[in-house]
Amino acid sequence: MISHRDEVTQMILSAKVLKGIKWCDAAKAIKLSKEWTTAACLGQMTFNKSQAETIGELFGLSDEAIAWLQVAPYKGSLATAVPTDPLIYRWYEVVNVYGSSIKELIHEEFGDGIMSAIDFSMDIQREENPNGDRVNVVLSGKFLPYKSY
Amino acid sequence: MISHRDEVTQMILSAKVLKGIKWCDAAKAIKLSKEWTTAACLGQMTFNKSQAETIGELFGLSDEAIAWLQVAPYKGSLATAVPTDPLIYRWYEVVNVYGSSIKELIHEEFGDGIMSAIDFSMDIQREENPNGDRVNVVLSGKFLPYKSY
Amino acid sequence: MISHRDEVTQMILSAKVLKGIKWCDAAKAIKLSKEWTTAACLGQMTFNKSQAETIGELFGLSDEAIAWLQVAPYKGSLATAVPTDPLIYRWYEVVNVYGSSIKELIHEEFGDGIMSAIDFSMDIQREENPNGDRVNVVLSGKFLPYKSY
Amino acid sequence: MISHRDEVTQMILSAKVLKGIKWCDAAKAIKLSKEWTTAACLGQMTFNKSQAETIGELFGLSDEAIAWLQVAPYKGSLATAVPTDPLIYRWYEVVNVYGSSIKELIHEEFGDGIMSAIDFSMDIQREENPNGDRVNVVLSGKFLPYKSY
Amino acid sequence: MISHRDEVTQMILSAKVLKGIKWCDAAKAIKLSKEWTTAACLGQMTFNKSQAETIGELFGLSDEAIAWLQVAPYKGSLATAVPTDPLIYRWYEVVNVYGSSIKELIHEEFGDGIMSAIDFSMDIQREENPNGDRVNVVLSGKFLPYKSY
Amino acid sequence: MISHRDEVTQMILSAKVLKGIKWCDAAKAIKLSKEWTTAACLGQMTFNKSQAETIGELFGLSDEAIAWLQVAPYKGSLATAVPTDPLIYRWYEVVNVYGSSIKELIHEEFGDGIMSAIDFSMDIQREENPNGDRVNVVLSGKFLPYKSY
Amino acid sequence: MISHRDEVTQMILSAKVLKGIKWCDAAKAIKLSKEWTTAACLGQMTFNKSQAETIGELFGLSDEAIAWLQVAPYKGSLATAVPTDPLIYRWYEVVNVYGSSIKELIHEEFGDGIMSAIDFSMDIQREENPNGDRVNVVLSGKFLPYKSY
Amino acid sequence: MISHRDEVTQMILSAKVLKGIKWCDAAKAIKLSKEWTTAACLGQMTFNKSQAETIGELFGLSDEAIAWLQVAPYKGSLATAVPTDPLIYRWYEVVNVYGSSIKELIHEEFGDGIMSAIDFSMDIQREENPNGDRVNVVLSGKFLPYKSY
Amino acid sequence: MISHRDEVTQMILSAKVLKGIKWCDAAKAIKLSKEWTTAACLGQMTFNKSQAETIGELFGLSDEAIAWLQVAPYKGSLATAVPTDPLIYRWYEVVNVYGSSIKELIHEEFGDGIMSAIDFSMDIQREENPNGDRVNVVLSGKFLPYKSY
Amino acid sequence: MISHRDEVTQMILSAKVLKGIKWCDAAKAIKLSKEWTTAACLGQMTFNKSQAETIGELFGLSDEAIAWLQVAPYKGSLATAVPTDPLIYRWYEVVNVYGSSIKELIHEEFGDGIMSAIDFSMDIQREENPNGDRVNVVLSGKFLPYKSY
Repeated sequence: MISHRDEVTQMILSAKVLKGIKWCDAAKAIKLSKEWTTAACLGQMTFNKSQAETIGELFGLSDEAIAWLQVAPYKGSLATAVPTDPLIYRWYEVVNVYGSSIKELIHEEFGDGIMSAIDFSMDIQREENPNGDRVNVVLSGKFLPYKSY
Repeated sequence: MISHRDEVTQMILSAKVLKGIKWCDAAKAIKLSKEWTTAACLGQMTFNKSQAETIGELFGLSDEAIAWLQVAPYKGSLATAVPTDPLIYRWYEVVNVYGSSIKELIHEEFGDGIMSAIDFSMDIQREENPNGDRVNVVLSGKFLPYKSY
Repeated sequence: MISHRDEVTQMILSAKVLKGIKWCDAAKAIKLSKEWTTAACLGQMTFNKSQAETIGELFGLSDEAIAWLQVAPYKGSLATAVPTDPLIYRWYEVVNVYGSSIKELIHEEFGDGIMSAIDFSMDIQREENPNGDRVNVVLSGKFLPYKSY
Repeated sequence: MISHRDEVTQMILSAKVLKGIKWCDAAKAIKLSKEWTTAACLGQMTFNKSQAETIGELFGLSDEAIAWLQVAPYKGSLATAVPTDPLIYRWYEVVNVYGSSIKELIHEEFGDGIMSAIDFSMDIQREENPNGDRVNVVLSGKFLPYKSY
Repeated sequence: MISHRDEVTQMILSAKVLKGIKWCDAAKAIKLSKEWTTAACLGQMTFNKSQAETIGELFGLSDEAIAWLQVAPYKGSLATAVPTDPLIYRWYEVVNVYGSSIKELIHEEFGDGIMSAIDFSMDIQREENPNGDRVNVVLSGKFLPYKSY
Repeated sequence: MISHRDEVTQMILSAKVLKGIKWCDAAKAIKLSKEWTTAACLGQMTFNKSQAETIGELFGLSDEAIAWLQVAPYKGSLATAVPTDPLIYRWYEVVNVYGSSIKELIHEEFGDGIMSAIDFSMDIQREENPNGDRVNVVLSGKFLPYKSY
Repeated sequence: MISHRDEVTQMILSAKVLKGIKWCDAAKAIKLSKEWTTAACLGQMTFNKSQAETIGELFGLSDEAIAWLQVAPYKGSLATAVPTDPLIYRWYEVVNVYGSSIKELIHEEFGDGIMSAIDFSMDIQREENPNGDRVNVVLSGKFLPYKSY
Repeated sequence: MISHRDEVTQMILSAKVLKGIKWCDAAKAIKLSKEWTTAACLGQMTFNKSQAETIGELFGLSDEAIAWLQVAPYKGSLATAVPTDPLIYRWYEVVNVYGSSIKELIHEEFGDGIMSAIDFSMDIQREENPNGDRVNVVLSGKFLPYKSY
Repeated sequence: MISHRDEVTQMILSAKVLKGIKWCDAAKAIKLSKEWTTAACLGQMTFNKSQAETIGELFGLSDEAIAWLQVAPYKGSLATAVPTDPLIYRWYEVVNVYGSSIKELIHEEFGDGIMSAIDFSMDIQREENPNGDRVNVVLSGKFLPYKSY
Repeated sequence: MISHRDEVTQMILSAKVLKGIKWCDAAKAIKLSKEWTTAACLGQMTFNKSQAETIGELFGLSDEAIAWLQVAPYKGSLATAVPTDPLIYRWYEVVNVYGSSIKELIHEEFGDGIMSAIDFSMDIQREENPNGDRVNVVLSGKFLPYKSY
């Protein structure tokens, strides 16, 4: 009996290591980006029926688990308010060090409002570089203005 | 008597509103990106002597304040571990929702290691879009592998 | 020298008590709702130039303060993560007790996504009732769906 | 052996996904609003005997679980003081950004006191809109004045 | 220029020590209980105009301070979530140790609902006792039931 | 194998719902107040041998569980520093709003010291009232003075 | 104008360094232990009138400051829940490492109850030792039993 | 399979209640103080081989558990930064109220440094007293000076 | 079914105590430093295939566990933000007491930037000393400068 | 009037920037290591009389400030439990990632006990390296064993 999406995420992670599946294979199987697919497999997005079945087959999930993949999950993948994993912490540090600059520059260009984290996409690529390859990430989020009423 | 870089940041913010200076004007004055310049003005980066003098003239700062601009600052621009400002929070939410996916995908491509937040740059642009303009952000950070020893 | 919008908020609060101004008077003066106007006076929204001048005249603010009213502020009006004021706490309690229900019902009706807090309005009215008058609040926020990509 | 209402909530959530039950079906079955019914199913309200039996039949609960549905539960559905789920966070953000305004406006209209979260109801509706449908929520809470003594 | 009720509370506390005023004297002056009067002087309740003037005269407050006494304050007198002062901590400990018992017994007697902290009064008396005098406190709060809708 | 009193508390709560036992029945069985008995059943007080056996028989506990009832427990019944349950929160709010007043009034009457939470008793009664019944609570705690040495 | 005992503590600390006064001199002046006297000077205990005058003369305090010394203070001398100063942290560590042992041994000897921190005294002495002198601390607190009622 | 010393602590606590063993019996069995022995049984100290075997026999532990008793444990016996149990809290309160005084007096006598919590012993005794017996605790810790280098 | 690296860490710890394996034996088996090997066994580093197999044989792990050893783990070995174990706390205290000095001295020598915790190694040795042996630790981390762009 | 060592630290930092003094100059002036001298200037160590006078002359401090330099300070230089500055955070991350390994290896070599942070020294040097210079840090702390008693 499954009572939380996290249990399905754990099944996927367990199967992934046992079977040696790659996230990009999962993405190809459902013909979507590796970024969205990974987020969905990790319990942050909702699959539709046919995607859930494909994912279920790939990772060997039960019908109950496949049903849970189609339910909008309780989101949030950090165990603590400040992340402890060094890779994820660096992103938190970027928000900490550059947060006020990002705010100032978006307001200077667009006025008061936010960059949406819902109407949003992310693309992560390797950027070859003779001094050591770089991680290149493109974030795109719709600007949503505050309106007076 | 100034005893913390934050006091200089407040002088800059105060002068910016009074004089109507734009961050991109400050960037042009020192011929660097608007992202780095804004972060430096907000107390997150260190100016060299000539940059500090140019910034000091632009914002009308005292010699003491200009000296402080050349000292490596105590960094971190968030007042609380979880930011309360909606624009900055959306970035924290991206780390929260996508953090584990970012980790998985960087490891899948590069192996164990991190994306540097020091050897790092950021570029924020308006992306025109008929459904509403978008904020487009490119992050580039060197991959640093964990090595065994 | 003003270096944070909070200082302007304090000037407005001080003037409000000294002069006995009402929030609905401020709203009438700029011909907007009392909800948006109060939020803006309390440092959560950005006035345009003519609104800022009207508000400045009403509360007797300096030109510098009026300039700050036109700058997108760092938002968030709670002093602690869990509010201590009983009136505000009751709203936090509603989120605590009903939060999962709101999530379930919005997903049941709209699918995965959120109710925007930016493309959002609020209307607070007295609802007369023989058993004691009630506070009636209407919240309206655009539904923003998560999209796969 | 059940020793906390949370276990019953998990049984209901598990059955809901397995059987494809909708919250509005549960509400219809006990002839109450979908808002109160969902909150009760999620462990925030107390069912009476006949409601508990109807809910128990719908979700296939044991007699012990049905007995627990009739006990006043320990309430609170957030896992952390600041919610991490984006949909629920937006509501927390509304309290954060508008909290002081709500307080000021209720006091301006009613004097010192609070809007009850107990003698309280909520109604969530889809509001059709050519620019994208909106979530419309009506909250109604009795005003309770502070009295001197 | 006063911008927060706390400043008036500090004026009252300062005057109280300098002039040797007792809380029960303040209570007598406005013909209300010492419990409500002290809470109001400490910034937790709202005085009406005539009470505020009497209190203002007693403690030697300015007209501006007297105006602030008539504004519904931001409430909460603890500096930290868990109080550090031993006397106040003992009350927190009572809530910690007896909280679940109080909840169970009120529900057993009244059903689901709460004991109001708004429609509420408190009376503190010395209870003479040969083994050492005791503090006797009577709390009275209206029971507010949760209603289904 | 039981290794914490909490497990016995859960057995009691489970049996209570299954068997429909009331706290006042348990109190009558051991001829003590319902307040102390409930606190003891909920793992906050220590039963003597004969009380533990009576309680064990009433709730159908094992000998091991009965032995644990006679061991001084690790006390504290709140899951978080600030309670989330609305009924218990109202008590926390009373400490928050009235804490400084209680401190001032006890010091005014007794001098420096505390009201004991150990040499302490509590009595909860229904107070009938035409405007809605009230919860009446009497707290009695010995005053303990700070002594110089 | 003084509005909090902390201001008097700061005056005492400032005078102590400037004048080179020792805590044991202050204790001798009022003929009490150095432990109680230091705690009182640091804002944790209440002086009587003659003690306050002696202390006031020694540290050169104003009449207003001397009046504050006679008011029961808000106690608690740690700036954070977990102390950062290494000397004070070692005491916190003792409570952390030995806390459960202290609890078990006091209960084994006395039954359920506590060691009072109010009817309490402390004596700190140098204990000469060829392997390095030791700090010897004697704590004496009245045992207060929990009583059933 | 045991993977943390806490599991052995729970076995000891469980056996202690079932078999009615006293901590002072355990201390006598290994010929050490009751304070150290209890701390070691509660997972804060490391037994040597012969002590572990004696303790293992007394409490009926498996060989695997006995092996774990000889491994230096992860120490710390408080579940939260601020303890909730009233007996342990009183010790935290002593650190809170007297912490700064202890620091001042040790520095006055010894200079800058700390009282060791490692080269440390504790002795807890009943102190008979006609006004109610007292808990007498002697703490002895080596003074460790900070040295310049 | 394993769904988190922590489970493998617990298997290793359990086997280590049962079989009496030393960390330096594990290090020798894979011909790397004891510091890196221990960190990797404790779930903070990633083994390659042949290392994982050697470690798996040494500790008697299943193939599934050996597969998990080759996956980049979620890092961070502290259970709380401030560590409670005295040995680990001393390191936190070093960061607390010397943190600002380390920052100042690295900036004085190298300019603005950081000492890498990724391109990093650690060596722990016993340093014999007639006054008591010492722990000697050498940390080496690449300096990474902040660059303007 | 100075009432806390922090004020002297701020005077030193202010003078350092204005006069362009280096920490190693301060160290040379008092003939001690740059590590200890910087820590002492930043309010973490106690100067003796002659050191304090030399430092006072170098930074141009008042006699009162020089007196404060000779008083054992309240230590701890982090503003938050988890440091936000990237350089200092890397050290916290080392404790987080390697903390359990350090503990295991010290216990394996020395048995149960700690590495002292009081009888402790630190040496920071530039380590030239063709792949980029490194920060080399040597920490030396006396091993203090836990003893049974």
